Amino acid sequence: MSNKKRTGRGSRLVYLDNNATTQMSKPVFDAMSPFLRKNFGNPSSIHSFGGANRKYVENARKQVAKFLHTKTTKEIIFTAGGSESDNTAIFSAINSFPNKKHIITSKVEHPAVLEVFKHLQSRGYRADYINVDKNGNFDMAEFKSKISKDTALVSIMWANNETGTLFPIEEIAKITKKYGALFHTDAVQIAGKLPINLQKLPNIDMLSLSAHKIHGPKGMGALYIKDDARFMPLLIGGHQEFGNRAGTENVAGIVGFGRACELATKNIKIEKEKVSKLRDKLEKQLTKIIPDTKINGDIKNRTPNTTNISFKYVEGEAILLMMDEFGICASSGSACTSGSLEPSHVLRAMNVGFNYAHGSIRFSLSVNTTEKEIDFVIKKLPKIIKTLRAMSPFKK
Amino acid sequence: MSNKKRTGRGSRLVYLDNNATTQMSKPVFDAMSPFLRKNFGNPSSIHSFGGANRKYVENARKQVAKFLHTKTTKEIIFTAGGSESDNTAIFSAINSFPNKKHIITSKVEHPAVLEVFKHLQSRGYRADYINVDKNGNFDMAEFKSKISKDTALVSIMWANNETGTLFPIEEIAKITKKYGALFHTDAVQIAGKLPINLQKLPNIDMLSLSAHKIHGPKGMGALYIKDDARFMPLLIGGHQEFGNRAGTENVAGIVGFGRACELATKNIKIEKEKVSKLRDKLEKQLTKIIPDTKINGDIKNRTPNTTNISFKYVEGEAILLMMDEFGICASSGSACTSGSLEPSHVLRAMNVGFNYAHGSIRFSLSVNTTEKEIDFVIKKLPKIIKTLRAMSPFKK
Repeated sequence: MSNKKRTGRGSRLVYLDNNATTQMSKPVFDAMSPFLRKNFGNPSSIHSFGGANRKYVENARKQVAKFLHTKTTKEIIFTAGGSESDNTAIFSAINSFPNKKHIITSKVEHPAVLEVFKHLQSRGYRADYINVDKNGNFDMAEFKSKISKDTALVSIMWANNETGTLFPIEEIAKITKKYGALFHTDAVQIAGKLPINLQKLPNIDMLSLSAHKIHGPKGMGALYIKDDARFMPLLIGGHQEFGNRAGTENVAGIVGFGRACELATKNIKIEKEKVSKLRDKLEKQLTKIIPDTKINGDIKNRTPNTTNISFKYVEGEAILLMMDEFGICASSGSACTSGSLEPSHVLRAMNVGFNYAHGSIRFSLSVNTTEKEIDFVIKKLPKIIKTLRAMSPFKK
Repeated sequence: MSNKKRTGRGSRLVYLDNNATTQMSKPVFDAMSPFLRKNFGNPSSIHSFGGANRKYVENARKQVAKFLHTKTTKEIIFTAGGSESDNTAIFSAINSFPNKKHIITSKVEHPAVLEVFKHLQSRGYRADYINVDKNGNFDMAEFKSKISKDTALVSIMWANNETGTLFPIEEIAKITKKYGALFHTDAVQIAGKLPINLQKLPNIDMLSLSAHKIHGPKGMGALYIKDDARFMPLLIGGHQEFGNRAGTENVAGIVGFGRACELATKNIKIEKEKVSKLRDKLEKQLTKIIPDTKINGDIKNRTPNTTNISFKYVEGEAILLMMDEFGICASSGSACTSGSLEPSHVLRAMNVGFNYAHGSIRFSLSVNTTEKEIDFVIKKLPKIIKTLRAMSPFKK
């Protein structure tokens, strides 16, 4: 099926892959639109045509700051995405503490954190990857046993992208501060789903956001840097972003991101009232109708839009491909893109058994998800699983 | 004057600041448009809705590769802009040669190169900044005397952003190779103005591009990395860009950049046939009508769209502000944005005298510039200079 046909009508596309990316909302597009062609000036210009764009950039910064409830707008810098924000935070921390050689993260982070940690190990850093239990919950005892005065950085995600499981950021950050380390959290998957109030979380030094996960543009992100936190830029050059991130501002992207943050505040209510109910319905019905299923993650402690369900004896990729025939979009937990058949690092860390881990599917809803779409999946998926299990070499 | 009024009609805006940023062209916007909202999928997805975007990303890569005449499309990676490309190239080079501690650039580079070099000096690197002569030409003899087997990287811009002066990249790259160092060039200001054929320039290891300087979107760039050149990514995480640059692809931006490169190939003809003639007319008339003027840069060896003219006894910023009243957009060479009154580092390196350097204005044209606009500037600017000189404390 072509891209075109799918998006021609909503009925052809059931998009339940919002943790991968979301659709830019119409008001975001409308906000960006004047800055794509018409008001194209460089905000650093002296002439008023370019300089006029400065206030739109700063207004967007206010919108992001308000969304996070930061103390000042200067605590927000714009980046080109969540990965750049994560990289910036981590490299900044280790460069800010040149004498500290220990860093801590968890086993279930996004690659934009995990791969940087592996890279730093190759440069001589000691890194600890904190374990999670079978529900994906953070092992606080292990964390407490690993942190020391030599720790430069603790980087722990707020919500997991694959299961939605939430980590106790406030407590982790508080402990981190006692040891004089910097605390960074990848908040890409919690933003827009649950409220964030940084004034109530004074021990968070840095926090990463991505615009395209909250119905904003791709190629845009932000990094919160607490006003008194040590910081060193990753991208060096021009004076943009208070000297914290060089490069001509992506004005349209920044304005769109600001608007997306404004809308996200309202969407959090919808996430709570509507999205979580649709997610619960999907989850309950699928696990009721289809035998040998298992929900991965802590169902009492997760984002409202995510469910990760394992279907025993079948391959996640096969499920995805058959759902694709019906226009249903979701993700598998397996590391498919690397060509490997190993299940996801998140499910492995949770010790999900082989027969379950391989058949895991992440459904991630958004405020745009309708009950009709959920009912469609509930109708189609049991048949798909039945067909696949009939062919499965694992099911005897 | 408001941003709105200015852009309401072309007649109100005379935009001669194209080296700062250009207007996104309509065909670029049209190419991007379907990927802003409709086809919003993540190209890394297994489902066809997202996966279908993969081919548009790869088609854009082909367009950029064709524009540069690279050997393979895999030699192109997309970044978030020229500054990221420059930073990536420089950090990659020094990390690729951990035992080499010497780096070379010129005194007139863009801050995205110069500031990284200063940073590396603070980390213990020896850095040489090659001088230019009074016309802004590269001091080849000095370069030859500085390069050694300890040199990890030579990073020399192709065309200067302030004067348009071209550097003899081919020869510099050839010498660089003899010493086993990597050669990088910031080609942001030559792209779209003069042809680039990398197959004829086998000694260039890395080359930076920016989309918004060639009528593409802001927040997009590319880095050419020769297939056999050592390379280490700056942004680490996901597998995107052949593992060379992590982060969900900015699909719309990438597609727009590809289209901009396609158009730029055609624009090079217009630059040669039309833009250079308009630039020459502007330059000749202004220097003829206005006394005590001076053209900065090598008029026989520069990009076709740029002229940098000094008006003795007046401040560049004052000229800009008065031109602004007539809707004329240009740039001054002074480091205005940093609040300093020092003239630009480029003009200082060229030993332009105090009385001239402070009153320097860069006019940078584009394929959109009309003769009517040029005539308007020729009509207005002499009066502006006369008015300012009458008030000048420098002119006795």
